[in-house]
Amino acid sequence: MTVDELATEIGAEVVGDGSQQITGASTLEEATPGQVSFLANAKYARQIESTRATAVIVAPSITPTKQITLLKSSDPYYAFMKAAVLLYGHRKHPHTGIHPAAHVHETATIGEGTTIYPGAYIGPRVKLGRDCIIYPNVTIYEDCILGDRCIIHASTSIGTDGYGYATHKGIHHKIPQVGNVIIENDVEIGACCSIERAALGSTTIGQGTKIDQLVVIGHGCKIGPHCLLVAQVGIAGSVTLGHHVTLAGQAGVTGHLKIGNQVTIGAQSGVMADIDDQSTVVGSPAMPVSHARRVYMHFTQLPNIIERIKTLEQQVEELASGGSDDGGGDDGAEVV
Amino acid sequence: MTVDELATEIGAEVVGDGSQQITGASTLEEATPGQVSFLANAKYARQIESTRATAVIVAPSITPTKQITLLKSSDPYYAFMKAAVLLYGHRKHPHTGIHPAAHVHETATIGEGTTIYPGAYIGPRVKLGRDCIIYPNVTIYEDCILGDRCIIHASTSIGTDGYGYATHKGIHHKIPQVGNVIIENDVEIGACCSIERAALGSTTIGQGTKIDQLVVIGHGCKIGPHCLLVAQVGIAGSVTLGHHVTLAGQAGVTGHLKIGNQVTIGAQSGVMADIDDQSTVVGSPAMPVSHARRVYMHFTQLPNIIERIKTLEQQVEELASGGSDDGGGDDGAEVV
Amino acid sequence: MTVDELATEIGAEVVGDGSQQITGASTLEEATPGQVSFLANAKYARQIESTRATAVIVAPSITPTKQITLLKSSDPYYAFMKAAVLLYGHRKHPHTGIHPAAHVHETATIGEGTTIYPGAYIGPRVKLGRDCIIYPNVTIYEDCILGDRCIIHASTSIGTDGYGYATHKGIHHKIPQVGNVIIENDVEIGACCSIERAALGSTTIGQGTKIDQLVVIGHGCKIGPHCLLVAQVGIAGSVTLGHHVTLAGQAGVTGHLKIGNQVTIGAQSGVMADIDDQSTVVGSPAMPVSHARRVYMHFTQLPNIIERIKTLEQQVEELASGGSDDGGGDDGAEVV
Repeated sequence: MTVDELATEIGAEVVGDGSQQITGASTLEEATPGQVSFLANAKYARQIESTRATAVIVAPSITPTKQITLLKSSDPYYAFMKAAVLLYGHRKHPHTGIHPAAHVHETATIGEGTTIYPGAYIGPRVKLGRDCIIYPNVTIYEDCILGDRCIIHASTSIGTDGYGYATHKGIHHKIPQVGNVIIENDVEIGACCSIERAALGSTTIGQGTKIDQLVVIGHGCKIGPHCLLVAQVGIAGSVTLGHHVTLAGQAGVTGHLKIGNQVTIGAQSGVMADIDDQSTVVGSPAMPVSHARRVYMHFTQLPNIIERIKTLEQQVEELASGGSDDGGGDDGAEVV
Repeated sequence: MTVDELATEIGAEVVGDGSQQITGASTLEEATPGQVSFLANAKYARQIESTRATAVIVAPSITPTKQITLLKSSDPYYAFMKAAVLLYGHRKHPHTGIHPAAHVHETATIGEGTTIYPGAYIGPRVKLGRDCIIYPNVTIYEDCILGDRCIIHASTSIGTDGYGYATHKGIHHKIPQVGNVIIENDVEIGACCSIERAALGSTTIGQGTKIDQLVVIGHGCKIGPHCLLVAQVGIAGSVTLGHHVTLAGQAGVTGHLKIGNQVTIGAQSGVMADIDDQSTVVGSPAMPVSHARRVYMHFTQLPNIIERIKTLEQQVEELASGGSDDGGGDDGAEVV
Repeated sequence: MTVDELATEIGAEVVGDGSQQITGASTLEEATPGQVSFLANAKYARQIESTRATAVIVAPSITPTKQITLLKSSDPYYAFMKAAVLLYGHRKHPHTGIHPAAHVHETATIGEGTTIYPGAYIGPRVKLGRDCIIYPNVTIYEDCILGDRCIIHASTSIGTDGYGYATHKGIHHKIPQVGNVIIENDVEIGACCSIERAALGSTTIGQGTKIDQLVVIGHGCKIGPHCLLVAQVGIAGSVTLGHHVTLAGQAGVTGHLKIGNQVTIGAQSGVMADIDDQSTVVGSPAMPVSHARRVYMHFTQLPNIIERIKTLEQQVEELASGGSDDGGGDDGAEVV
């Protein structure tokens, strides 16, 4: 494929020699001749001067010193994604449909074009939509429903029992978990996650939401569409997330909270209260980001702050004893 | 089942019309006519006024404004659990006994009434008690022992090797992990957990302890009976927990500590010292809860505290320079 | 085996009766007669006085009060490891080679002496070296390469897709993950971990690195040789670790950072900046350990610090109002 042909496919404008052949894609740093790369973050702009890539997808405003073919796009990373799909495609599965070593219950319904790998378990009355991919050793408990084009990675568990017990006289009695999990279209879930079924009703994951590795979603959660839940996030039971919510790695949310739309929650944050739409919070406990930045700056400077307090204490003592020389002895005594 | 019949079964007293039919159970918010609900937390008391439930299980002291049938019980949540078991029962398994697609070593001993799902691996000399449930893709390494009525959810690993190496000249040499894991009766463990076997001796999980999703228990731990370990908790090696210890989500405990009886450890806490009986600790590092509340309140107010220090510094400077006007010039110079 | 024979095998010098029989190994606290134990940490030195062990491996400088046979070694824990291997050996597998219930793709290459347990999935073109152990329900995605003597515990996933999406008009578009994972010789990985494949190129794990349970390694990471990654550690994408780096439990590292050689990162730390060689950092955000110790000491004493500020405020107010009696009224007014 030539640069010109690629540009047409990804909707970019060529600046420079469009006749060169492109056979692969890589990062600016690792690209070799014949590869297309991209610049999506101004932070890496200098790398464009030293890259060995044949062509680079950039925003219209970028004009490097170096002589290099540019593919100008209003969304370079999205254009690069399209180039990578054209050049490499997505995974070719080693088999089609349900592998004979998968365990699919006879009452489960599997949509056309869905691929199920060896060792996956699909329980009674589960419904999988079309063109899903269920990787090895995934477990989907009974009655769960997945939409179309869902991808579930290895060893993830969908619909395991919620963590619900009634404690009576020191004994924890299991509450039947008779709900299910409903996952909408185009959801991807990483490896070794657990999505708990609701005790009653449904745990839901909204359309287009992408979940990373080792994430836990508690029973009865309502996760909105187009959210991003990064690795090792934990969300306790009955939490509601709006749309386009991002939780960075290892963040945790306590139970029964309402997180608004387009909220961003920082890595390792501990969320213990509802969050309004369009907020960004970080820290444990989670605070609005502008406040949190000052809190953590002061936190890391605590030894210096203590020095300032010690200095103040010495100064005040000196002032007080200086005052006592002038006859203010009673007040001075109190100070010490 | 009528409300009166349900009341008899769960040991509650009917106040109102006991002749109505009950066919299901739900939360106050989501209940529909024909369903029984419950009020276990005074925080949700207002919901009883708007619920569509036919009957509500409540504490004896509750008297709503609304005309609704009440089921009075001294432990409403426990009574509700019994109602849910009556109305729905626990999971009906799609097969009985050992599924042919489970991998059970010929030297393993499986108790009567135990259900093993496809893809589960039960290693040499493992002993499972009666009426256990081993969900799909669970791995139980050799020589581990489980009591009766234990439930192990999908993809959990029992008896994996402890993380033990002797480092010599920069190389980490594996120490044989020749102990096992002993799990007592009525333990439930969520999905994708790992319970390490002891290097020597046993890692033990006490009777009635309930473990949530993605929890790690290190080698040689002694977890007491009736503990609650919430999702993503991590406990390092050789830790001892008493009875009725609760660890909230994402809490961590470093190695070789002794945690007393009836201890509660808050979410995301980092425990680095032994904890006495009946303590509640929160925070990282974990502190007694009353102290920690003040620490975290001040922590989130650090920008305000810095302002107070700045104000003090200005005031002291003014006082000192004011004093220097009165002839205390030498001291004043030191102050600046 | 006699104490003398054991000493020869592990390279230790006998002080005391070397003719006694040794049949097992244990900790000082749990050892019984006939067992060998060890003292590697001076903290436990008192236990040597009460142990029931027949012989104890110690550093040359140790001279207990108690009459007990000593095995003197310059590296007692390493010597103990050798004794444990002699006395118990490593795991004897219940089968040799590839178990018939494992799922190995026909294009995968499996080295001699490698053991693959039931339920493990080995994808297309995977290469496993010699003498590896792949435990039950492990998933190795296509094109990944493992060296010799690697050990992968149950339900771990190697080569799952990296978490990479291009977000365009609110929709997250999956970027093909066409790289792989390369694991060098002598790496051990615990249960329920996920090692993401690189989008392009390789995620690499260096020789001799040991990874505990439930660890996540992001796509494109370069983990150096002889590192120790303790349970529930999470490392985001494109992070580089040097050699002999230790991350304690639940620590997290954000993307694209460079961590030097021989770095130690404390439990629950949050690393958000590059780290130089030989550094030790702790805390969230991670700070050099000597600074962090003071920060956290002051942090836990914040209520006391606030009291000191309150006292200062009262003193300054008194000084200011005392000053106003002497005629400094204008300044005094500002102070209040």
